[in-house]
Amino acid sequence: MNCTELNMNREDDMKRPGIQRTAALLFVLSCFTGLAFSQSRVRQPFRIPTVPGYVLLKCDFHMHTVFSDGVVWPTVRVDEAWAGGLDAIAITDHLEYAPHEGDVRRDNNRPYEIAAGDASSLGLLFIRGAEITRKMPPGHFNAIFIKDANRLRVDDWRRSVDEAAAQGAFIFWNHPGWNGQQPDGVSRWYPEHTELLEKGLMQGIEIVNEKEYYPQVHQWCLENNLTLLANSDMHDPVQTAYDAAAGDPRPMTLVLAKTADEAGVHEALLSRRTICFWKGNLIGREEFLRPVFGGAFRLLKDTVTVRGTDWASVPVFNDSDVDLRLSLNGQADGLSVPRTLTCPANKVVRLSVQGNADHGTGERVVRIPYTVDNLWIAPGKGLEAEVPIYCRFVK
Amino acid sequence: MNCTELNMNREDDMKRPGIQRTAALLFVLSCFTGLAFSQSRVRQPFRIPTVPGYVLLKCDFHMHTVFSDGVVWPTVRVDEAWAGGLDAIAITDHLEYAPHEGDVRRDNNRPYEIAAGDASSLGLLFIRGAEITRKMPPGHFNAIFIKDANRLRVDDWRRSVDEAAAQGAFIFWNHPGWNGQQPDGVSRWYPEHTELLEKGLMQGIEIVNEKEYYPQVHQWCLENNLTLLANSDMHDPVQTAYDAAAGDPRPMTLVLAKTADEAGVHEALLSRRTICFWKGNLIGREEFLRPVFGGAFRLLKDTVTVRGTDWASVPVFNDSDVDLRLSLNGQADGLSVPRTLTCPANKVVRLSVQGNADHGTGERVVRIPYTVDNLWIAPGKGLEAEVPIYCRFVK
Amino acid sequence: MNCTELNMNREDDMKRPGIQRTAALLFVLSCFTGLAFSQSRVRQPFRIPTVPGYVLLKCDFHMHTVFSDGVVWPTVRVDEAWAGGLDAIAITDHLEYAPHEGDVRRDNNRPYEIAAGDASSLGLLFIRGAEITRKMPPGHFNAIFIKDANRLRVDDWRRSVDEAAAQGAFIFWNHPGWNGQQPDGVSRWYPEHTELLEKGLMQGIEIVNEKEYYPQVHQWCLENNLTLLANSDMHDPVQTAYDAAAGDPRPMTLVLAKTADEAGVHEALLSRRTICFWKGNLIGREEFLRPVFGGAFRLLKDTVTVRGTDWASVPVFNDSDVDLRLSLNGQADGLSVPRTLTCPANKVVRLSVQGNADHGTGERVVRIPYTVDNLWIAPGKGLEAEVPIYCRFVK
Amino acid sequence: MNCTELNMNREDDMKRPGIQRTAALLFVLSCFTGLAFSQSRVRQPFRIPTVPGYVLLKCDFHMHTVFSDGVVWPTVRVDEAWAGGLDAIAITDHLEYAPHEGDVRRDNNRPYEIAAGDASSLGLLFIRGAEITRKMPPGHFNAIFIKDANRLRVDDWRRSVDEAAAQGAFIFWNHPGWNGQQPDGVSRWYPEHTELLEKGLMQGIEIVNEKEYYPQVHQWCLENNLTLLANSDMHDPVQTAYDAAAGDPRPMTLVLAKTADEAGVHEALLSRRTICFWKGNLIGREEFLRPVFGGAFRLLKDTVTVRGTDWASVPVFNDSDVDLRLSLNGQADGLSVPRTLTCPANKVVRLSVQGNADHGTGERVVRIPYTVDNLWIAPGKGLEAEVPIYCRFVK
Repeated sequence: MNCTELNMNREDDMKRPGIQRTAALLFVLSCFTGLAFSQSRVRQPFRIPTVPGYVLLKCDFHMHTVFSDGVVWPTVRVDEAWAGGLDAIAITDHLEYAPHEGDVRRDNNRPYEIAAGDASSLGLLFIRGAEITRKMPPGHFNAIFIKDANRLRVDDWRRSVDEAAAQGAFIFWNHPGWNGQQPDGVSRWYPEHTELLEKGLMQGIEIVNEKEYYPQVHQWCLENNLTLLANSDMHDPVQTAYDAAAGDPRPMTLVLAKTADEAGVHEALLSRRTICFWKGNLIGREEFLRPVFGGAFRLLKDTVTVRGTDWASVPVFNDSDVDLRLSLNGQADGLSVPRTLTCPANKVVRLSVQGNADHGTGERVVRIPYTVDNLWIAPGKGLEAEVPIYCRFVK
Repeated sequence: MNCTELNMNREDDMKRPGIQRTAALLFVLSCFTGLAFSQSRVRQPFRIPTVPGYVLLKCDFHMHTVFSDGVVWPTVRVDEAWAGGLDAIAITDHLEYAPHEGDVRRDNNRPYEIAAGDASSLGLLFIRGAEITRKMPPGHFNAIFIKDANRLRVDDWRRSVDEAAAQGAFIFWNHPGWNGQQPDGVSRWYPEHTELLEKGLMQGIEIVNEKEYYPQVHQWCLENNLTLLANSDMHDPVQTAYDAAAGDPRPMTLVLAKTADEAGVHEALLSRRTICFWKGNLIGREEFLRPVFGGAFRLLKDTVTVRGTDWASVPVFNDSDVDLRLSLNGQADGLSVPRTLTCPANKVVRLSVQGNADHGTGERVVRIPYTVDNLWIAPGKGLEAEVPIYCRFVK
Repeated sequence: MNCTELNMNREDDMKRPGIQRTAALLFVLSCFTGLAFSQSRVRQPFRIPTVPGYVLLKCDFHMHTVFSDGVVWPTVRVDEAWAGGLDAIAITDHLEYAPHEGDVRRDNNRPYEIAAGDASSLGLLFIRGAEITRKMPPGHFNAIFIKDANRLRVDDWRRSVDEAAAQGAFIFWNHPGWNGQQPDGVSRWYPEHTELLEKGLMQGIEIVNEKEYYPQVHQWCLENNLTLLANSDMHDPVQTAYDAAAGDPRPMTLVLAKTADEAGVHEALLSRRTICFWKGNLIGREEFLRPVFGGAFRLLKDTVTVRGTDWASVPVFNDSDVDLRLSLNGQADGLSVPRTLTCPANKVVRLSVQGNADHGTGERVVRIPYTVDNLWIAPGKGLEAEVPIYCRFVK
Repeated sequence: MNCTELNMNREDDMKRPGIQRTAALLFVLSCFTGLAFSQSRVRQPFRIPTVPGYVLLKCDFHMHTVFSDGVVWPTVRVDEAWAGGLDAIAITDHLEYAPHEGDVRRDNNRPYEIAAGDASSLGLLFIRGAEITRKMPPGHFNAIFIKDANRLRVDDWRRSVDEAAAQGAFIFWNHPGWNGQQPDGVSRWYPEHTELLEKGLMQGIEIVNEKEYYPQVHQWCLENNLTLLANSDMHDPVQTAYDAAAGDPRPMTLVLAKTADEAGVHEALLSRRTICFWKGNLIGREEFLRPVFGGAFRLLKDTVTVRGTDWASVPVFNDSDVDLRLSLNGQADGLSVPRTLTCPANKVVRLSVQGNADHGTGERVVRIPYTVDNLWIAPGKGLEAEVPIYCRFVK
């Protein structure tokens, strides 16, 4: 039976003769056990502070269905995205690879057509896409914001990319370090990529695909001013691969859009305004990560009295759903401070400071030089964030 | 990319020039965060003591795929079942209802053919089935252990059932209280059901379907000696509907088989040797529930010294994955005992007893009259289980 | 060793000869596993919308330490309260009951004196209190906002209460239904309680103590305009008795104060502005529960188009840390709506509505008559809350 | 009120006039929500396979109470240990450090005397101990199996150790790398330690204390044939410092005893038969870790057919409460195998193997050379464990 309808009704056998009232009560009790949250559709919002002037949209632009080599119906991708707190997705089934062809109609526009209605009722931005699936070079590319996926299914990969561009697509290179095409796991840049880049036909690259992050590719994006992307490339149901509640969330491309609609997402991607979310890390340009950190990391008290070499502390609130992990990268003038400070999402911790023997007296701002180890502005480089504390030093 | 292959390889970009060694280390650390359990295939065994002489197999004989109105590929049902600790399943797509017909080939043998290889490599018993989907009466019936599902797709429901029987099927009535066919939620028995019963064409009934239990139907099964069944009737990915770790497990039919193979399951179903598992409750005939309880509920100490009106206690271990909830249904001779005792799965609790003022002295067995509230031998009737404690009564 | 200091340092043996570099790396990896959140002090804020004009303070005015029959040092109560998101507490050790007297100094001012420094550095309001512990009648009473607990330790209970009042105390009756003093579990009102009430010496009563709620007492409070209190009466470490993360939070008295300080708490208690939080339920006067519900239950879209008898839905966000459970108590004009709606804390659910056959066309507000089953304005009486949806009815 | 008594009774106000029957029902429902597991005493057994010939006892020989600088009453340590699955503990309050002296009687035998009754009723082995707390050198030492702690409280540390020895104590050095006595975090061996070692007055050392592991100290123990110890050194309530359910368990010394009693523990400690459990790692001598691994890591099928370069797999069950993390340290003849294999506690995973191009045909055992990364037989050295798989190689 259909579970949506189920919610509206309830077994009523207890009213019938032959079943005692006390028995019925027992069942009522039993029926409610564990039912509380089993409503079919619950959305877990994902809270990340935005960059002033933009709305931050949680997106995933790479996923599959039974229409290529995935194992779910297109509507599942919409349901999963809504439940997982996403704002925009693209289904991007392989154009050239259709292992279910004997059972499932080969039409690359169907996934979009089938799921568009659900996306619309849920208020999810649903972007038409497809994966151009070729041997390396140039490998796999996603084209999103297209109009007719089937017209991209042509023999020559250059013609396929050109057709995508002609349809107004945003085009990006998928998983350059995938061992299916890079047996030694090394991401390699071929002349074909230079060709695409120079023609404006490669506007971004996945620096994160599924469970992998490619530092070399991150560097390429910075050097060539390309859009950073982090996508799930899901084939299975989302819960088979990820468990956000257990600390293993799906990757997302966070898009800083001027407007919360398709056009806004498109413009933001073209303008390189993205942050990649992967395994609790945020990866992006410093100009975007700094305000995100500022919005999340909040001193609940900005003044502290430091008496001799006593301990004192400042409460810090992490007003986001992303844990923040800080480590010290220098000295704090007059204070001993923790070498590391972990601020769990949505919780308050104490930043404990101890006066140095020679801190003198008087009032001044002490800037504690921390690096945020899980906010990466370049491969291997965390965001530097000075934490200013107004100290009253007394004896 | 394909996640199975992924496990065998790892990104190796760090060895390349331009990325510093320290950065590489940081990434190694990061890469391991949260990865521990993300291997694609982990099976959570479900431990329930068996009835001596039989192997207890966890089964689900009712579920759907994209080949009728489900939203997953047939292999997903096999993966889910293996991961969830099941031993045997049947995919039972609707014969007469095919809303995806425009996109998915209409062939009711395909789900079995597509997933049989995976089931075999995982060691899962995979039973060919189909759902005969008719208006009420007689409603929906599952036929399992069939040979050719397509041959059941005929106009007359009686001919469909006869064909199933001719193929050697085990046939059961699905969700008699489903509000889709019983708008007032009341399970109704029609002359057609008497007809099927008398012809031996209805060998069992679902007393549990999805999230619902039908006490009236439970009663019918007891009165007519029919096989009790509890099935998920899943259309969505399993995790969309259930979360075993959070206390909301999928329903199962526990089959007490003489042999752990298809023939064993078939024989056990014909012989009515099943227990239904639903929302933490076990529902079945007393002869089966009693040994299951006995295997799970274990006194770790069987003797206790009761001094005057002091408290004493006996540790009780629940050696199963099913919580046990007991309530007192009488008096314990010479002792005050807890009115209720909850024994969480796999844990030890103290059964605390207090001497009565007039318990006398000497040694004797005190039988504490408990009812196991979540082991149901009939609608509204828990298993009565005396807990014997050998007491040394002293002053 | 002391764990606070520990955070500042780290084992450095790896630098020593004899331990290889690779080994060291292994240990670094290992050392970080699971350490992320083990900092000693993490506070989990508890988000409940407040009533406009007041700050909502989470309080617990009843708990014990080793100075009477508790098993923790006074500072533990402060640490637990801070970590648990509380804003104000009172330690209220028994004046007349001191089972640890042979080992622990009998001085009822010591708990306050010992823990006041920690409370102050953590920013927790810490109120001096004591439990006047007498036989029934009148039973146990807490006096908080006192100045010298030891002076309340006198033979005559009336003199003890008078002394508390003379010190400016807020005085309330504890656990009137406690089976230690009410063997049959029935809360009984004695002439002594009338005496205290009339003299203004009983300003509130615990309607919740530890794991119990007393509906009869709730009724008394409403009839006599007394302050509703919900306290933990903890003797053990908090985690022994409660597990908020697993859905079993400690009880709290939510105080609606004009100022977030001791005087504010005192004034609010005298003015009866409290809400009791117990096992996920909020219990209080309608004038307070209504704005709390309004602040938490938010329609994310207020207009919906209802086409014929199709389904449509409105997303609802529960902007609080308290689940909300609604059930229908009437008809919604023109719509079929869910009989029950559970809104988990901090999540979004869909309120699905279906057009009735005869809903007509046009635009109008439909008010769905829900009762909030876990917000209680009187014993057995949930808050009635109409949910208004602006509907565009079309064919 | 007292929570043990509470379990036996229940609020009965609903029977009184003035409260309607329906209201009462509502409360019954509400009262049960979340109560299921709140019984005060639940023990979570900790399953680790033992070494044949010995019983494996989970122990912690270092913890504090209010009688020195801890913050809990002695009975709390017993309750915590029982609930946490431990079999034996020693409370070891500081002899020379008593910051609560103004409030708590200074008698180092009291912790044992106070909690011995509870330990006995719970069946916990409870060993009398104390911490000899001196400046470095020689630092802090625990003496357990003593008879009168107070007699160890003498000025000269050598006389204190001698007195412990005279009482038959097992004596071990605590936390040699503690930064409170080693400001640079480096564990240092002083002539005093040689003196104690040579006199037989230092029989073991903590290689794990609280959240720290000291690899250098581990090496010392191996070189000097000393007993390896891992203790919690708890001062706070256990749940403040650890959360086993969230993957942060308390450290334990696993003792391989000939008999499950105090004498058995003592003999095993003297004979160096211990394994340290710390953050999911087992640290001990190879002769003990090998059978533990063998008891936990179980191939559920020992034969596999390898067809050409196809994938095949073997199910592996981890029959223990400790996750096992394996990594490849060589080549498997004829097979490609996973570089890493994580076997979560109590679950089954698939060990997937792929035939090499040139594996030939025929049947043979292939030994896969794995290292168990979280079973340490020396600092930085995992247990090497060949996994034998019987392969049928076919074309």
